[in-house]
Amino acid sequence: MSEAFDSLISDLGQRARSAMRALAASDSGQRDRALRAAAAAMRDQAESIIEANRSDMREGGQRGLGEALLDRLRLDGERVEAMAAGLEAIADLPDPVGRVLADWERPNGLRIQRVAVPIGVIGVIYESRPNVTADAAGLCLKSGNAVILRGGSEAVASNRAIHAAFAIGLEAAGLDSNLVQLLPTQDHGAVGSLLRAHGHIDMVVPRGGKRLVARVQADARVPVLAHLDGNNHLYWHPSADPDMAAAVVVNAKMRRPGICGALETLLLDARALDQAGNAIERLLELGCELRGDAQSCALDSRIQAATDADWETEYLDAILALKVVDGPESALAHIARYGSGHTDGILAGDADLAATFLGRLDSAIAVHNASTQFADGGEFGFGAEIGIATGRLHARGPVGVEQLTTFQYRVLGSGQTRA
Amino acid sequence: MSEAFDSLISDLGQRARSAMRALAASDSGQRDRALRAAAAAMRDQAESIIEANRSDMREGGQRGLGEALLDRLRLDGERVEAMAAGLEAIADLPDPVGRVLADWERPNGLRIQRVAVPIGVIGVIYESRPNVTADAAGLCLKSGNAVILRGGSEAVASNRAIHAAFAIGLEAAGLDSNLVQLLPTQDHGAVGSLLRAHGHIDMVVPRGGKRLVARVQADARVPVLAHLDGNNHLYWHPSADPDMAAAVVVNAKMRRPGICGALETLLLDARALDQAGNAIERLLELGCELRGDAQSCALDSRIQAATDADWETEYLDAILALKVVDGPESALAHIARYGSGHTDGILAGDADLAATFLGRLDSAIAVHNASTQFADGGEFGFGAEIGIATGRLHARGPVGVEQLTTFQYRVLGSGQTRA
Repeated sequence: MSEAFDSLISDLGQRARSAMRALAASDSGQRDRALRAAAAAMRDQAESIIEANRSDMREGGQRGLGEALLDRLRLDGERVEAMAAGLEAIADLPDPVGRVLADWERPNGLRIQRVAVPIGVIGVIYESRPNVTADAAGLCLKSGNAVILRGGSEAVASNRAIHAAFAIGLEAAGLDSNLVQLLPTQDHGAVGSLLRAHGHIDMVVPRGGKRLVARVQADARVPVLAHLDGNNHLYWHPSADPDMAAAVVVNAKMRRPGICGALETLLLDARALDQAGNAIERLLELGCELRGDAQSCALDSRIQAATDADWETEYLDAILALKVVDGPESALAHIARYGSGHTDGILAGDADLAATFLGRLDSAIAVHNASTQFADGGEFGFGAEIGIATGRLHARGPVGVEQLTTFQYRVLGSGQTRA
Repeated sequence: MSEAFDSLISDLGQRARSAMRALAASDSGQRDRALRAAAAAMRDQAESIIEANRSDMREGGQRGLGEALLDRLRLDGERVEAMAAGLEAIADLPDPVGRVLADWERPNGLRIQRVAVPIGVIGVIYESRPNVTADAAGLCLKSGNAVILRGGSEAVASNRAIHAAFAIGLEAAGLDSNLVQLLPTQDHGAVGSLLRAHGHIDMVVPRGGKRLVARVQADARVPVLAHLDGNNHLYWHPSADPDMAAAVVVNAKMRRPGICGALETLLLDARALDQAGNAIERLLELGCELRGDAQSCALDSRIQAATDADWETEYLDAILALKVVDGPESALAHIARYGSGHTDGILAGDADLAATFLGRLDSAIAVHNASTQFADGGEFGFGAEIGIATGRLHARGPVGVEQLTTFQYRVLGSGQTRA
């Protein structure tokens, strides 16, 4: 079976590669026209997309999917319109391909340019939300890549209907439908083949829960752009303005406690204990559970005792770990030990100290005096993101269309030979 | 045994990580002082380095190493001086860490910067040349990384002596000697553990022959920066100036036929056949063997018939494959099929056509009217390189100190919360 899947992926990959190469010969406007035509097709096909989704929902209900999962799976007119509008927003972004990232001349007259080019063939593996089909296809097409999509088993009919609408857009713009392919089987063996398809797949982006991401990271032999955890920290330095710090902490935890940029542990400087009362009060009022070390627990009887497991936990919930530290070094040591390299930062009025602190964080995103919930492609001004990466190579932080490109050196000569 | 090696690598990796984190707290001048002190130590210790090398040479001779391998292994006063001078040249390079790669402000007043930071802990696996010990240590230190080195078994004593001299430099500048560690065993199991040490090793750079690189790429579970093949092409378009094209082709093949940037296949446009006579004559005069398709063979009786294997072969020798193509599309198709994504290009007077051609090459380095032998960090102005990469992510082409950094987003606020 494994060989059959390998050959399936090799076939899809070759068709994707050749479509992607042909795309390089086309003009960039063609990609945008395809995105707009795909948006129009989403609207035209809204009824059949919603109908397909109803069948997924029915089957999901029969299989006993939980309410949260069913809500993620559900499509209605509003959600289809959001997909279409999302594709138009991607079309409006500047072309990430062909940007001259660097340009210099050598003493021998050679001109060397670093130019943004597509990465190649990208595999996207995701779970129940069917809108990822449109988003991922749109972001990959905009950046000149070909994509092979593998959505969740519970959304098969929805994903097929969305993919069919996208294909109408590609065809309307005269582009090869092999630029966006759906894996034709839900068998896990095909995912395994895709993750090992060195030479056919240039990068894999998993979108979904921690179990999915962990499995992809463990099995992949091709590069993976993802984050496993967002165990994010803020360190409250005594130089911080207490009102500013309180507002940022409350927002970082409670705006949406379930997103990967949410704050999970607050490191409170021992010299700032008497300034944090307001923040603690507001968190508790908003229904946030607080779990602290012994010194934190002494601040308020409603703070529960934390265990070591709390420092490691990404709650993704209205729970915040609290730890008192005796200064920046202790805060950095705690983050180095327990952090996940996603988003960490400092609340401080002392800008020099803050700059030094940020420079010593390993995190993809290092924040000074702002909410960790800004860890988002839209908030960064990237327009849209396919995910957030915490690896150290290629792209870190929000992955938007620019991050879906790599570069090529162009060496422009007039007959130079090497001595 | 595998568990023992895993625990060894985990131990080395943790010491490397903590040394690298401490380095982030130091000023950049300290790294340069260490590099200069290491250069001075190389010179001071030249006698003992050469003595250690003599013992490696003796043992190599007894084990029947070939003359080419023994030459690569050999150190003398001149080669030790070259290592020392190389470290000083690295110290003279601008600091790659802390460069602000991008800097923008959001409508809410958030300032976002993309700042170059070290990659982390780098593993370098190499073969007989002991100078790689000094070069790799120097490049990694300059870029703020910690490195774990694993040299060839035949150079164990030489590598230890060079490493000891480097450690003197680190200590003289007050830096942690764990920034540069030698793997204390030559057992292949330890290499296997290093290649799987996710979380401890952030990237591996193999330096050596194709067998070594292929093995590392196959076994690694951490990112690898390398190139397997340099099967490089030039396409000779009829608009090319024949004298320029001939000079470039001869240089690209014959300057040093054994380097990875050497030309391996010349794709001759059918409309340029009568212009290529000079180039063919000069290649033959210089002792280059030519292997061509039927149309090429008709040009000169000294051209041998090529087989399909020739299109796939990186000769690394004074042999050039010749193929007649009927235009740019055929040339691109040939390169797409047989190229290795290293360095390919076009010889053409028509600049628009050349620009389009470069944009359709998948290669890390795309060349117009210049020798492929410019595929080199020094020639690019990078000062020094740890290798050439042909992967599509992170760094492509020459890997110098800038390419040994990644970046971090710094989000600088004044109390911004997310709506």
